[in-house]
Amino acid sequence: MGVVVPFEDKHPERNASIEKLVSLVSSDMERVNAMILSRTGSEVTMIPEVATHLISSGGKRLRPMLTLATAGLAGYEGDGHVKLAASVEFMHTATLLHDDVVDESDMRRGKIAARIKWGNEASVLVGDFLLGQAFRMMVEVGSLRALDILSAAATVIAEGEVMQLAAAKNTETTEDEYLAVIRGKTAELFAAACEVGPVIANRSKAEQAACRSYGMNLGIAFQLVDDALDYGGKAATLGKNIGDDFREGKITLPVVLSFRRGTDEERAFWRRALERGETEDLEQAIAIMRRHRALEDTIERARHYGAMARDALELFPNGPMRQALLETVDFCIARAH
Amino acid sequence: MGVVVPFEDKHPERNASIEKLVSLVSSDMERVNAMILSRTGSEVTMIPEVATHLISSGGKRLRPMLTLATAGLAGYEGDGHVKLAASVEFMHTATLLHDDVVDESDMRRGKIAARIKWGNEASVLVGDFLLGQAFRMMVEVGSLRALDILSAAATVIAEGEVMQLAAAKNTETTEDEYLAVIRGKTAELFAAACEVGPVIANRSKAEQAACRSYGMNLGIAFQLVDDALDYGGKAATLGKNIGDDFREGKITLPVVLSFRRGTDEERAFWRRALERGETEDLEQAIAIMRRHRALEDTIERARHYGAMARDALELFPNGPMRQALLETVDFCIARAH
Repeated sequence: MGVVVPFEDKHPERNASIEKLVSLVSSDMERVNAMILSRTGSEVTMIPEVATHLISSGGKRLRPMLTLATAGLAGYEGDGHVKLAASVEFMHTATLLHDDVVDESDMRRGKIAARIKWGNEASVLVGDFLLGQAFRMMVEVGSLRALDILSAAATVIAEGEVMQLAAAKNTETTEDEYLAVIRGKTAELFAAACEVGPVIANRSKAEQAACRSYGMNLGIAFQLVDDALDYGGKAATLGKNIGDDFREGKITLPVVLSFRRGTDEERAFWRRALERGETEDLEQAIAIMRRHRALEDTIERARHYGAMARDALELFPNGPMRQALLETVDFCIARAH
Repeated sequence: MGVVVPFEDKHPERNASIEKLVSLVSSDMERVNAMILSRTGSEVTMIPEVATHLISSGGKRLRPMLTLATAGLAGYEGDGHVKLAASVEFMHTATLLHDDVVDESDMRRGKIAARIKWGNEASVLVGDFLLGQAFRMMVEVGSLRALDILSAAATVIAEGEVMQLAAAKNTETTEDEYLAVIRGKTAELFAAACEVGPVIANRSKAEQAACRSYGMNLGIAFQLVDDALDYGGKAATLGKNIGDDFREGKITLPVVLSFRRGTDEERAFWRRALERGETEDLEQAIAIMRRHRALEDTIERARHYGAMARDALELFPNGPMRQALLETVDFCIARAH
């Protein structure tokens, strides 16, 4: 009989869960959810319809939980974190609505995309409405510093998306260029969501910077894992909901690595598939990625950013909230298994 | 020989000009323009390209001039009005970029629309970038009350646009419903632009409300005149750049009035043309409007709101700035001649 090799040892994050975080912020999250519901209201009935379609379709609400958790970590005792957390979720939802228009997506979170059901127009405008509501809630909280952080994030997110547009279908994209895109389009909102916690608690610059760094690196790791999952994750088995990036010609890290490491024929394949959209052979794409360990190494890169996120929190004394945030990093990476 | 009837007497606004306003705010406007240029900058080159395409294409920059003028009227002596004025113009530009996507327009201000040159994606995202930059500038000014007013305006504008979408192609739209749309999509930004002037000058609630009312009513008048101009204005002669609203099936006041006042055949014409897009006979549309004095009465309605705007300023002592603002009302209406 052969020996069973326990993979768990090599990847300690395998059994990580987000449950600790969820339970620590659950009572605050109820208030955030109530706030979200009340602020999507409008006499213009199409607005709550479109907004609720997306907001009620699930999603883990990781970003607002991070705002609540970092406020808790910083010992914040006021009420402002609830509105800031709801603002963060609205900014995220607005981005998703606009992304669907930009990507011409048909599906989002397993449901028909809002733009298919109500049209591009409604997606653009309801996104604008939610952005406006996000800013109104921030203004109500009254922290100019938090407003500064979140409004800066709004521009950086848009910059990241435009960068992605400019890099689209360009197989020559470097890993650094790709990192700049995901820092903008994904990690910046994670960073801002985490930074405003200690900010409204009036904690030191060092602690604000630590939470920002945690969020930024967690966001990068999160997006890298997402990119790997779009090709079926480390296991690289064909399943549902994979191959979207491939079909849209999106250049993500698994592609960047495969292209760099590839033969001339393989590079020609990527150009045909992603630049010119001439082939849609997802199985071949995954086979090339396997050959060059592109998915494994994308996850390895995610682990690197995850480690930086964890180290950023060393500044804070140990406790249940810090522990929950550390485990959240592992959970984000464990999704890849 | 016949007697020449001087039309000027009946329409005192005929010779009104915006020159007084332009010259009173010109040195501040130079600073606003410099601010606009510097804040459209980004390392992501597509952003300044798209933004500058629209921003440098002219437009009177009426909205930022109103912020500068009402700050002046309120005796403001700080620097914040420059950034708030630039924010207002960015909010307006973002709206135009998103509108082009929503309306599927090919032209804007006599140039090819950004969405044709760079795609819908870029228009959505650069609009988001400019909105973010607008909020950053507001935050830098540091007035929570001004932030409150302008962020509320952002949501109301989006609501107005969604309302317009919901009313699109519906010839049963009432005048009140139509007014609700233009209050949101146009007048709210005029109102906010004017309100923040006395707000940053710490003037009384009454003066803030007066400036808001001036802006709101001026904005309604402005949009009504615009709607009449889309059918060639009062003169109703065929020319360039007219008929866009008609071809897009937009229900504006000239249509609302013509439909209400029309015969059964005329109503059938409007339904065919606007609801089902089966005919594009602009000349017939204008002929029906003429028959029912729809364009003249749209301008008459604009005069009504213009009068309210002028009365709102009665609170302030007379002086060159008040005079310039009063004449701006006349100028906006005089465009119809």
